[in-house]
Order: sequence, then structure tokens, then C-alpha cells
Amino acid sequence: MKATVALLEEFDRPLVIRDVDIPPLTAGQVLVQIEAAGICGSDVHMWRGLDPRTPRPIILGHEGVGRVVKVVGEKRDVHGDLVHPGDRLLWNRGVTCGRCYYCTVLKEPSLCINRWVYGIYRSINEPTYLNGCYATHIILDARTDLFRVGDDIDPAVLVPVSCSGATVAHAFELTPVTVGDTVVILGPGPVGAFAVAFALAGGAAQVIVVGGTAERLAFCERLGATLTINRHHLSPPEQIATVRELTHGRGADLVIEASGSVAAMRTALEMVRHGGAVSLIGFGTPVGDVAFPPFERLVRKNVHLQGVWVSDTRHTLQALSLVLTHPDRLSLVTHRFPLKEATQALKVVARREAMKAVIVPS
Amino acid sequence: MKATVALLEEFDRPLVIRDVDIPPLTAGQVLVQIEAAGICGSDVHMWRGLDPRTPRPIILGHEGVGRVVKVVGEKRDVHGDLVHPGDRLLWNRGVTCGRCYYCTVLKEPSLCINRWVYGIYRSINEPTYLNGCYATHIILDARTDLFRVGDDIDPAVLVPVSCSGATVAHAFELTPVTVGDTVVILGPGPVGAFAVAFALAGGAAQVIVVGGTAERLAFCERLGATLTINRHHLSPPEQIATVRELTHGRGADLVIEASGSVAAMRTALEMVRHGGAVSLIGFGTPVGDVAFPPFERLVRKNVHLQGVWVSDTRHTLQALSLVLTHPDRLSLVTHRFPLKEATQALKVVARREAMKAVIVPS
Amino acid sequence: MKATVALLEEFDRPLVIRDVDIPPLTAGQVLVQIEAAGICGSDVHMWRGLDPRTPRPIILGHEGVGRVVKVVGEKRDVHGDLVHPGDRLLWNRGVTCGRCYYCTVLKEPSLCINRWVYGIYRSINEPTYLNGCYATHIILDARTDLFRVGDDIDPAVLVPVSCSGATVAHAFELTPVTVGDTVVILGPGPVGAFAVAFALAGGAAQVIVVGGTAERLAFCERLGATLTINRHHLSPPEQIATVRELTHGRGADLVIEASGSVAAMRTALEMVRHGGAVSLIGFGTPVGDVAFPPFERLVRKNVHLQGVWVSDTRHTLQALSLVLTHPDRLSLVTHRFPLKEATQALKVVARREAMKAVIVPS
Amino acid sequence: MKATVALLEEFDRPLVIRDVDIPPLTAGQVLVQIEAAGICGSDVHMWRGLDPRTPRPIILGHEGVGRVVKVVGEKRDVHGDLVHPGDRLLWNRGVTCGRCYYCTVLKEPSLCINRWVYGIYRSINEPTYLNGCYATHIILDARTDLFRVGDDIDPAVLVPVSCSGATVAHAFELTPVTVGDTVVILGPGPVGAFAVAFALAGGAAQVIVVGGTAERLAFCERLGATLTINRHHLSPPEQIATVRELTHGRGADLVIEASGSVAAMRTALEMVRHGGAVSLIGFGTPVGDVAFPPFERLVRKNVHLQGVWVSDTRHTLQALSLVLTHPDRLSLVTHRFPLKEATQALKVVARREAMKAVIVPS
Repeated sequence: MKATVALLEEFDRPLVIRDVDIPPLTAGQVLVQIEAAGICGSDVHMWRGLDPRTPRPIILGHEGVGRVVKVVGEKRDVHGDLVHPGDRLLWNRGVTCGRCYYCTVLKEPSLCINRWVYGIYRSINEPTYLNGCYATHIILDARTDLFRVGDDIDPAVLVPVSCSGATVAHAFELTPVTVGDTVVILGPGPVGAFAVAFALAGGAAQVIVVGGTAERLAFCERLGATLTINRHHLSPPEQIATVRELTHGRGADLVIEASGSVAAMRTALEMVRHGGAVSLIGFGTPVGDVAFPPFERLVRKNVHLQGVWVSDTRHTLQALSLVLTHPDRLSLVTHRFPLKEATQALKVVARREAMKAVIVPS
Repeated sequence: MKATVALLEEFDRPLVIRDVDIPPLTAGQVLVQIEAAGICGSDVHMWRGLDPRTPRPIILGHEGVGRVVKVVGEKRDVHGDLVHPGDRLLWNRGVTCGRCYYCTVLKEPSLCINRWVYGIYRSINEPTYLNGCYATHIILDARTDLFRVGDDIDPAVLVPVSCSGATVAHAFELTPVTVGDTVVILGPGPVGAFAVAFALAGGAAQVIVVGGTAERLAFCERLGATLTINRHHLSPPEQIATVRELTHGRGADLVIEASGSVAAMRTALEMVRHGGAVSLIGFGTPVGDVAFPPFERLVRKNVHLQGVWVSDTRHTLQALSLVLTHPDRLSLVTHRFPLKEATQALKVVARREAMKAVIVPS
Repeated sequence: MKATVALLEEFDRPLVIRDVDIPPLTAGQVLVQIEAAGICGSDVHMWRGLDPRTPRPIILGHEGVGRVVKVVGEKRDVHGDLVHPGDRLLWNRGVTCGRCYYCTVLKEPSLCINRWVYGIYRSINEPTYLNGCYATHIILDARTDLFRVGDDIDPAVLVPVSCSGATVAHAFELTPVTVGDTVVILGPGPVGAFAVAFALAGGAAQVIVVGGTAERLAFCERLGATLTINRHHLSPPEQIATVRELTHGRGADLVIEASGSVAAMRTALEMVRHGGAVSLIGFGTPVGDVAFPPFERLVRKNVHLQGVWVSDTRHTLQALSLVLTHPDRLSLVTHRFPLKEATQALKVVARREAMKAVIVPS
Repeated sequence: MKATVALLEEFDRPLVIRDVDIPPLTAGQVLVQIEAAGICGSDVHMWRGLDPRTPRPIILGHEGVGRVVKVVGEKRDVHGDLVHPGDRLLWNRGVTCGRCYYCTVLKEPSLCINRWVYGIYRSINEPTYLNGCYATHIILDARTDLFRVGDDIDPAVLVPVSCSGATVAHAFELTPVTVGDTVVILGPGPVGAFAVAFALAGGAAQVIVVGGTAERLAFCERLGATLTINRHHLSPPEQIATVRELTHGRGADLVIEASGSVAAMRTALEMVRHGGAVSLIGFGTPVGDVAFPPFERLVRKNVHLQGVWVSDTRHTLQALSLVLTHPDRLSLVTHRFPLKEATQALKVVARREAMKAVIVPS
């Protein structure tokens, strides 16, 4: 039996479409036929060779949904229900060891020292070989946490759950929102969109999104944002003034940096109220230094500044729950491509044309 | 009836000792005869005129312990017990409104927008007139939260509770320690010493203090620090390596910046483990900018960076509880001065000769 | 100037409508013209004389909304905004001292030892004299926390915020809900209805309501409950089995007892999953003993059983925020009465005919 | 190679000492030579046949410390350090699946649906065959979480960490103590003794222990309890009055039921202050019903009543940290027996003569 994969062989060159043998499964593994694979901004980063540690040749893609083809042995999802061929699955994109200090003592598997991720850490020559989502099939390791999903939902809508959605869930666990809060989100991409959804799911009364793309801001409004600000129309000081005006002069309870911009991080520190929190989710890669006065921005304001690194099974399930509760509102997908146009999909994301681009292999 | 006060009239000049009339008390006020008044680093800052907003003439001193001379009406301490003349008192140095959003909704009175502090915010010409501790008497406003203290303890030992102790209590509330944790404290002054005590009171297994003064480090060892590092002997990279070695390579669970140095803050961000917390207590005044890479220091490490601003009644009571439980160990006082040598006391603190200098007016 | 009040003079007899002089206001007091006053189940309890401590004659009514007639001095709401005649107000029904251990150290003003409540604790002969809501006017004490509310909402819709809404907010603070949770609510009255709203505002994926009145269950469905169970159709064991079935056999993450029934409390302890929480909000008055096996229901299941007592300003603001966000959905009012029919309103509530009955004085 | 085991073949009859073959190890397993094995109250319960589900023949003993004899493959402790023959080990007594909802989503492995415990769940005929601590050797499953311990401590002192110590750690995680708190502990056995240690490690200012055995109360005083009450000298109402007197009339912040008595649980609910917590750790087995008035004891007092079920790796490490920090104070061992006198050890515990009895096989 063969699988078709889109392979990153050389940086910044078109992915190569290849047919490869599906290797024999080992105990606890699950063979899944991919129904939809999401394109993440970090895929573009790897494709371009900006992270020289990227192993090659590699099947990119850490966001996937698919149908079970084969299971070796008895296999259960996180709810303890048996997994059968034909079931639709979503899964935690990270595989963790369950044995290290972070897994057992701190219970923060997103920081597991042995964590690896489908489509990022391993070349096609390492187990599970079919270990990325830009493909017709993926083999899920025995330690992968699985969620069975119903048939009545478009699988493409679910793929952003695995990465953006889960990471935002992690962020809201670290800096929670309370009923009545004002939340500001800097950056209206997929992370920002999920942040709108999680802010509302936490009872926020005001959700303000700042961005530069009218379409994305309009999308956030449909999601329930109570105000959107186009940063081409309002300068950072004006944005800060607007937030203060809407909060009786205090500033926001929670500001989420979801754009990956050092300037936005500095703005966030000025937008937040005394005693509030700033959550950094937007930085997926190094950006150099940020400079700010710690007394004025953190100490005098008693601010909680939180870095957020990836996510775990709990967070993925929370994001999934949110999308399943509001499938229409949380449909981020704007572009769909067949597997052989995977390179095209990367380019669309690179040009920031898509809110969410998805590969639909068949 | 007269009180003697040490008055800051001109910046950077000797305080002037004056006898002033004790004004008539209003409802709920308490006249207290000061038994001990602490000299805080911020007093030096104000005395030197580095904070130009300092109102003058002012009685400095926000840390005090004394005996009740007179009470107007029925007055109770925070435990609901009646306050009588002759009772020894300690009090929350900040007076808060109890009505603003921070007081009523957020329950963070340390951020109260109407908060004022004895010895800092008001000149001798504003209520309660006798409103600083460098004096024989102080008049406590009706809204001041009071703690009655027994007679069997040296009052000088208690004064650091009001400021350093309470602020450290606040810090540990914002970034708690867990049984078995490793805590690093940068800066072995009064704040650092209380941080040692609170880390141990929270069950820390390792408490590591970094400082530049041998006496202060020795003091921290007597308090229970498990390791002290003289920064003149070990460079920051060596300090970081030492912390990693003692934590199976992970870094500290909690790092407390208690020195007010931007360089120490950067070191703190490297000493902390993934998922750990860095608490900023040392910055009492503006220090300019700090620069660091947010991806590497905060996001990739999932770090919680917390600014800590002052404290409230709850924190003061916690610090008091700690000192009363361990009065011998937590006796920070190294220098005592009569009121007329208040300027001398400021100079000793300015030269960092004292762990804690105290004015004993009589 | 006169106010009209409905006075409870003799238990279980019609309230007496009287015109009384509006007393002169003291510093910080606010005279408010009542626009809507809610009838609470506990009002019925007091009216019937089931709480013999009820002071008489008393103006009942602790839930009110109204317009400012007069303010003595400068007065601000919790946001720090000035309060002017003509402003519409809602307020925390409890007045707390701000000085006791619960207020200052524990920051739980709902447990303040000096707390009193409009319409419950004081007769018409005690300050503020006009101190209940079944009246054309109320005088708010200087220590009352105020919220200004816009003109574009029916004031009757807001009254349940003060009591049911705020208490439910308190419950969710003590036993929080997480995105994706399953919440069961036993009792579909005003408390249960707010519990549905708060469960959804916290991201619950399943909200199951058990009750005996079809209309109330239908109301909860319109609020967003995902399942309602009529307890006349399903026995407690069947209810428990249903909840297990919907949660992969585990039971609910959070069960809220909102009916005041000892039997329901026992059912709640069986419906909750291992490690889950049971919140008791329904018991407003003594109900005698409950008996259950602590090993099987609490220890072996690692369950958190939480009693919930009233609420504070923070909770009232949260409930208000929720109603203002969803005014149509959260309109509980089914019956309206003029002030002179206040007794009629009590009877409607006593017969459980109303979801929420409101007095509209003018 | 042979191991000697003390086998429970018939309930309530002497354990049978047998020499058995050590089976071949499978991947990831560790063969450990037992240095000390603790006798737990639940061992007595099983031995007497009070839990009819007990599999037989079984090697009792879930608390153990020993030295590594052999490791199959590369094996690391929770800190990631390699485990070698000769290393001294302690381990989490429960083995969990790492895959169920409790393990992956709720991160509460103590509630894992597949959890099994050495010396309790499996007969000698089930893997790992040598699966209890009343033996010269034990085989640790590949999924067991390991802690390496130094050579400079008496291993007998460490055994209570695995069960009593870890469970108390879990309790304090669920109902935490704060600096300055008053904690009451009902029952001065091993669980109560660890509760004293954890209360102090959390900063409690007053730790009050109620018990019926003078020796155990004296032991708790040496551990740091600030007051002990002999329940033969003070009735429950007098105990409650004493606690109130020491807390300005409020009651205790936290009451820990560590005796397994329904009467003590009722006393606990009266001793706790409004807004405080009652933690149930003492009930290891069914005790029938408890009856109390939920309005007066839970709702009106806003009390958190928490059941505590076993513990996980995090908790075991915390208890270990506490004992390693205070090995002299936390040495609970009063009786030591060679393996062949294991039945004698059970009898001593059954008669409550021992604070802690330990088997030292060699």
C-alpha cells in the first residue's frame, strides 16, 4: 500500500510529491488517511530554511484530521472509547514522554524535554516515517493522544484546533479571563481569532482586536469582537487611548500579543491595566531584543507578563470543544488546495492572503 | 501636648528636629507614641531629592511600631479586638479608599487609586499632620488597618514587616512557591532576607542567595539559605551554571530580583527553568530600559515575569506572622539611632552599611 | 418630600402601604427612586415569619434598580465615575465594614462580620430608614457600592442581578468551570437560570438542567442549556445514568445544587465525576440534616463540596456584565406588579408561579 | 536467583514466608532489593480480610525503599538522571496509564482509571510478580516513577513518604495553607504527623493537633505543633471552644480529618472558620453515613469540604523533599521487624502501638 506525500527536500524550493510505501505498523500505532491538513505560519518558516535545524527530507504539517485506516491492537481515545477503522480523528500534535520532570511532577507536558511534533521534528527517515500531515496518510505513534470526532462537521474547520487553538487555550490557562473583563488582542490571524473565541468563552464583556487587514478584522467581528481597530488608521498611542477610554481609564485586564511584533509587545505593556496580564503567543521564532522600562511597565503596574509555549492534550481538547460548540463562527478556512498544490498553499500563507489555508488531499 | 519630629525641609540637607503641637484628633484616629521607625532605601531616595514630587516639609518614615496614647471612639484592630491606650501597634503603611474598582471589584487594595502612605505622600501640613514615623508621635487615620502586638518582642525587630516584609509577602502571593522548590534570590538586603524567610515558609528545599556583601550573605545563611553566592567571586554565567547544576539542569522554579539592577533582571531570566517565574521586587524607582530577547527568555521558556507593587493589609499580617514565629532569626536590625540622629541613620543606609537601621525615638 | 413604602408589620398579613417622610440625607448618602424591585424567595420566607429574627416594621426588598434623585457630596460609582441625579443605578445589596478580618485580610467581604443587607437586616426605624426596595424611594448608605447603568435597558431585567445573579457569580468563583466542561444544575429557578448563563460564559460544552416545572426548563433551554430533564419523568438514578452516559461514564465536572433540597444534594454527590465539584447555592434557610457516606461520596471520589454564602461587589458586577451582554436571553421577569400589589407579588412567588416577579412602583 | 517474600495466603492468618524465583525482567523494569518496607493501616485492613476484593496470594506492602540490583535498558528517574545498580530508590507506589482522561486532560493521575498499586491490587501471579514490599526484592514496572535517594539517610525514615506523606501533600495541594494560618489536625498518626509538617512548611502560625494517645501527641509537639489536645481530657465542644479562642473567635482556617472518624468529621465542620476548608484524609475505608446540617455547616459558613484520594508522583516528591529537609524531626519509625516477623509488625500496627512500624528485610 502506498501513500502520497509532499516532501520538503530543499529549502525554498517546491515541495516534491512522491509516492512512498506505507511501512508496517508497530504496536499501538494508528494509520490515518488525512482528510485535511492545515498550513501554519511556522511551516512557511521551515520551508524557507529560516530554521536551519529542520531535518530533511521532511513531510511538513502538524495540523491534521483524518480517518482511521488501521489500528494495531486495542486502542482508545482520551475518553477511553475504543478507536476503530473508519473513525474520524484529531490528535495532540505533540508526543510527550510521560516520564520526565515536566510530565510527571510539574504536569506541564508542553514543556516535556522529550517532546516531538508531527511535521516538525523528524525526517521521513525517522519513526513513524509517515510523520507529517502534508500527505494522504499519517502514522500516529502509540503515545499520541487521540480524539474521536463526529462525521457531521467539515474536517477542514477542525485543523486549526491542533496548533493555534490549542496554544490559545494554553495562554488562557496561564492568564485567565474573568466574566466582565476587557481583553485586547493584537494581531487578527488564526491565533488572534481563537483568542477572540476563548475570551468570549471566558465571559469577557469587551474584546478588542487590533490589526492591519480589513478582512481579518471583519472576521473577528463576526466571531464576536466588540471592537476592531485598524492599525493603519490609529497609531499605537491612539489605540492605547481608545482602550483606556473603554475601561474607565484603567486599561485592559488582559492583552494578548498575537502578531509576533516587538513593537506590539511594547504597546501591550502600555495597554494593560495595573494588576493585569500580558500574554505573549505571537512569537513563534526569534525576533531579537525588546527594550522597555521594567519599573514603569511591570513593577509600578504590578503586571504579569507571560510567555506561552505550545500546548498539550488538555488544551487541544478545549479548543476542539470550542469549535464543536460554534462550528460556523469558528470556521477560519479561506483557502483549500489539493495535495499536489501544497507549495501553492505555503505561498498563499507566506503572502498573508489566507486566514487559514488547508490541504485537502483527496 | 507636643511631639518631636525630624523634618525634611530641603533635599539633601540634614533633617530638622522640631517640636510641634499635636493637633486634635478626629473620629476614629489613633495617637501613637513611636517606639521604633525603620529607615527604608526609598527614604534615602526622597531625602536626596531624587523624586521631585516629594511634598515638603515632610516627616519621613513609613515603617513604624508604637504604643497607643489615645483613641477617639471605639476602635478595633483587624481581628476585631478593641484597641486601648497602652496597646502596642503595627499598621498597614498604606491607607486605601475601600471604594474604587481596585478595592471593591479586584480586591487588590495595593493598587487602590486613592492609596496614600505615611511618610511618603503628604506634607506635615496635610492630614493627619503627624503622618510620618521619624517622630515621637504619629496620628493614624481612621482608615488605617491596625495589628496589636505583644509586649514580649523588641519593637525594632518588627518595623521591617511594614514595608520589605509585606512587599515580599505580596510577591509570594503572585508567584507562589511549592514544597520542594528551588528559589534564587538576587540581592541580600532586607527584601532579599524576607524572601529567604518566605521561601522557607513556603517549603522551598533550596534557597540560593546571590549578593555582593559578605555580611549580608552570612545573615541570609543564618536565616536558612542553603547556598550563598558572592557575585564578586562568581560571574553571572557561573551563577547560572551553579543554579542549573543544583536543579538537574533545569534552572530555578522561582527567581526573585531583589537588588534593583537591570543586569540582575537579565540574569534572573536566564536562571529560571522553563515554566518558572521571575518576580521583580527590587525596583523601587525608575531604572531606564532593560533589553532582552522575548522569544528566548519568555516564550520558548513559558516564563511568568511578574512585577510586584507594594502590598496590603493581608501581606503585612503575613510578614508579621513570620517574624513573630521566628523573632530571633528574622531580626534584621543592625543599627539604632535616637531621633535627633535621623540624618545619620539615612547616611548609614545610603552607604549600604546597615542591613536595617532603626530610629528609636526615646 | 414623601415616599410610599410597602411595610411588613405583621407576619403573614398583607403588607401595609404607607406614605412616609423622606428623612434628611447624611454625608455620602444617595436618594434613589426605585424603578424596579425584585421579589426573592427569602422575602416570602420573612413575610411568613419563618425567620423570627426579622425586625419589624420592615420594608422588604434587597434587589433594586432606580434613578438618583439626590446625592450628598461628591459620590462615585465603583468605576470612579461621578454619580449625578438622573443616573440609573444598581448596587451591591450588602453593606460591609471594610475593616474586619474578612474584609481586609481574607478579602471575602461576603463574610464580613458587620455585613447588613437592604430589606433584610434593619427595620424602618434604623438607618438609612428607607432601607428596603418595596418602596418608591430608597436611601443608600455611604458605604454602598454603586454601578451606573445605561438608559437603554428595561430596569426590571436587571433586578435579579443583585441577589441570584451575584450569588451564582460567587459560586463559579469558588468552583470554576473550564472550557469543555459538563455542568449539571439541579433546580431551574432564578439561581439555576443564572447558573446556566455562568456555565456557558465559562465555556461549558454541556449544561444539563434538572427540574420539575416545564416552563422553567423551557426557559433554561432558551438560555442555552444543552439538555433539560424533568424530574417527574426521570428518577434520580435515571438522571445519574443520563449524566454518566453524556460524559463517557465519568459524571459531571461540576454539579450545582440550586433547589434547596437535601435529596438533590445527595443526587449531586452521585452525579459528579471523580475529582469534580459540587456547589451548594440552593439552601437559603435551614433544612435539617443530610446523611451520606463520606468515604464513597467525597474521599474515594476526591470531590470538592462547596457551600456558597451570598456575594460581594465583584460578583454583582460580574452578573451585571452577563445580563448587559445578553439582555434578551437573561430576562427572567414573568410578572410585574405595582407597589400597592406587593403582597400579591409575594403570593405569586410563594406559589412558585413566577420565574421572577418584580414590583414596578410607578 | 531467589527472593524471600511474606505472603498473605489466608485472611487473618500469619503471613507465610516463602522463597520464590525472581522472574526474568522485561524492558524498562528494575529489580530492587528492599531495604525498608512500611506497614500501613490499610495493610492490616487487607490482612484481616475486611476488603474481600483483595487478590491472593499477595505480597503486601506499598511503601518501600531499596537498592537497585538490575536495570533492563536505559532507565532514568523523574529528574532525568540515569539509574544504575547500587542506587538507592524510592518510587511512586501507584502505576498509572498516562493515557486516560484523568492522566492526559485533567492531569490528576491519582484518579487514573487504570491505576494500580504495589502490594494492593495484584496477586503474586500477576506482573510484575514480585509486586509488594514485604519481601527482599521487588520488581518495578517500566511505568513506575523513580526517585534516587542519597546514602546518608536511614531508609526506614523514608518509607512513610510513599503513602501517608504523599497523600498529605495531595491534601495540601487541594486545600492550601497560607502564611499565618491556623491549622487543626484531628488524629496524630502518620497522616496527622505529616500534616503537621506540611502545615508548617506552608507557613502556618498555629498547628493544633487533637488525639487520644499521649505519645503521639508528644511526637507532634516535637514536630512543631504549637498545641496538642488530648481528646480524653477535652470534649469536642471544649476542643471547638479552644480553637475559637485561639483564632479571635473565628475558628481554624483549615481542619484536617486524619483519624477516619465520622464524629471527628462533624467536629471538623464546627471548628473551621467561615470561608475555611475541611480536608478529609483519614477515611481509608467505608465508614457508613455521616449526618450534618448542610445549611449551617457548609452554606452559611461558605465552607470548602474536600475529599482526598491517594496521591501521585508530584506529591511523593514533595513529601520526600520535606523528609530530606528535616530527617530528624520527621522520623516516624518506632518499631522495626525482620521480614520473617512481618505478621508481628501487622499486629503492632493493628493494636495502634506503633507510630510507624517498618520491616527491614536484611
